[in-house]
Amino acid sequence: MATHREIHFVKAPDGMPGEDCFQLVDAPLPTPGDGQVLVQTHFLSIDPYMRRQMGGLGAYAAPLKLGSVMIGRGVGAVLESRHPDFKPGDAVQGEFGWREHVVLEGRGLRKLPADLEPMSLGVGLIGQSGATAVVGLVDIAHIMAGDTVVVSAAAGAVGSVVGQVAQLKGCRAIGIAGGPEKCRHVVEDLGFEDCIDYKAGPIDGALARAAPNGVDIYFDNVGGDILDAVMLQLNMNGRVAICGQISQYNVRCRQPIKNAGVILDKCVTLRGFRIGNHLARRDQALDELMDWHRAGLLKYRETVARGLEAAPRALINMLSGGNVGKQVVRLAAAGTG
Amino acid sequence: MATHREIHFVKAPDGMPGEDCFQLVDAPLPTPGDGQVLVQTHFLSIDPYMRRQMGGLGAYAAPLKLGSVMIGRGVGAVLESRHPDFKPGDAVQGEFGWREHVVLEGRGLRKLPADLEPMSLGVGLIGQSGATAVVGLVDIAHIMAGDTVVVSAAAGAVGSVVGQVAQLKGCRAIGIAGGPEKCRHVVEDLGFEDCIDYKAGPIDGALARAAPNGVDIYFDNVGGDILDAVMLQLNMNGRVAICGQISQYNVRCRQPIKNAGVILDKCVTLRGFRIGNHLARRDQALDELMDWHRAGLLKYRETVARGLEAAPRALINMLSGGNVGKQVVRLAAAGTG
Repeated sequence: MATHREIHFVKAPDGMPGEDCFQLVDAPLPTPGDGQVLVQTHFLSIDPYMRRQMGGLGAYAAPLKLGSVMIGRGVGAVLESRHPDFKPGDAVQGEFGWREHVVLEGRGLRKLPADLEPMSLGVGLIGQSGATAVVGLVDIAHIMAGDTVVVSAAAGAVGSVVGQVAQLKGCRAIGIAGGPEKCRHVVEDLGFEDCIDYKAGPIDGALARAAPNGVDIYFDNVGGDILDAVMLQLNMNGRVAICGQISQYNVRCRQPIKNAGVILDKCVTLRGFRIGNHLARRDQALDELMDWHRAGLLKYRETVARGLEAAPRALINMLSGGNVGKQVVRLAAAGTG
Repeated sequence: MATHREIHFVKAPDGMPGEDCFQLVDAPLPTPGDGQVLVQTHFLSIDPYMRRQMGGLGAYAAPLKLGSVMIGRGVGAVLESRHPDFKPGDAVQGEFGWREHVVLEGRGLRKLPADLEPMSLGVGLIGQSGATAVVGLVDIAHIMAGDTVVVSAAAGAVGSVVGQVAQLKGCRAIGIAGGPEKCRHVVEDLGFEDCIDYKAGPIDGALARAAPNGVDIYFDNVGGDILDAVMLQLNMNGRVAICGQISQYNVRCRQPIKNAGVILDKCVTLRGFRIGNHLARRDQALDELMDWHRAGLLKYRETVARGLEAAPRALINMLSGGNVGKQVVRLAAAGTG
């Protein structure tokens, strides 16, 4: 019987996950039934929300069951199709899980644009990460030309797109990131107006200098102290799109919002969201991002780990802030390029 | 020279205001210029937001200057008009301040419906209080038929309307109020499905029993521990309209939102608002409320203090939760009925 490799989730972490939360196993190669498609995984997407599904700290959807294949989106190539919309060789995206091959219903797959290169962008810039940035800015934070937009984890997969889209929409983009190299990248490569290094100390003074007229939108990827600091500099009718709070995923007690009084004082909106609840808008956002990408208007970077077995370390690396841009895992099927 | 009486704001409070924050003074009776109207005050509106403009604790608009007439809305009768839209005898509403007469520009006045009786409803059920309830539910919290709506200060001027309007919109209304008599009033007189007495202990268990399927909308008038308790029982896509946070107005350090993680976990929206930023919608809401009132669909109660000199005590009473329904002050001009 043909086999392939999968990574199973075998232990709920206590705080930051370790590699022992995962197990590499050989499993039977799945075969597609009617309406199904067999896909070979080329790239896996490594994202902060995964930590939230590993249990213990902060409900998300149903927590992942021990012994199941680790969740995660991927891009790959169709090997065999029993669905009329897909044929062998098609580049597709979907909820693959950490495995070398996957069988999915046709409705669970989305074809990538034929000219998308590299294919890994299908989980990043032109995938959930990019769509999260656009939907967060447009549908959640109601971005308007002239807004001052602040985004944390600005060098990350979502944050890097938030700042660039904000600029395309006629706004000022200010990043917050950890360390001088990330901040340099955000300003020099991605074109943000400024980027504040939160590892250099409290951000209050630097943020006040970078945004002397206050903050209209804060796109929150980190939560905690940084959220509280930005709250104090929000303008009237300020909007906070809470996309993620990575600082709170590995702690036992999540921090309160200390400066909650600002919500009433400044008629502020805080709104948590996840892209999976906005699928129609996600697809529109992907089309818009692809247009910008074709026009050469979006920069991106990827941090690439090699081989399925590298996925656990890649996740830990990303949760520790070790990535610049999108963290992906490149499987053997994608070639060695 | 003709004089009348005014109450001036003369001392910023440290915590709960005392009567020594105010001074009753004789002042020249004002006379209207071109485009202006002289109004005799019949009722003054006593509202929680006033505390916030007295300074020290929580920014609002510009804090009130010491020595100025105490702010507050009122209803009264036009005595003399130099504006084409108003004539003597018209019942009007506006930002009067605590004084027996006021001269205002015509654009600062709104005529009350001719059949509005008693006139005091023009600052309550068919005034800012009622409009705040409607705009908060419709525009801020996006109420939908079938929602479970929880409102704090449910026996108050705004909360009492929130629960009744929620029911008219096909929703379940659950109140939170202080003490058995207020809770009885909320359920028996106002028709809420349930009302939880927060003075009887933590509300968590009672709220879970009253809303076994969770809370879709929380209309917050109090902030603090009650906000935190309701946060934990919000449903996915829950909405919190933060209208006021009376528990936080007389404290030096406002409480954090401890259960802030819910915002991301449940894709919740928290939004602070004040009716003064929604004037077009306020006027539509007033028309809608008047239609319901004419149809006999809205119950109300008022707590009435007598005489301009009673206004400071009425404010302190309201901030202490001593009112049921709208707290107003009835001036001599309104008669002795």
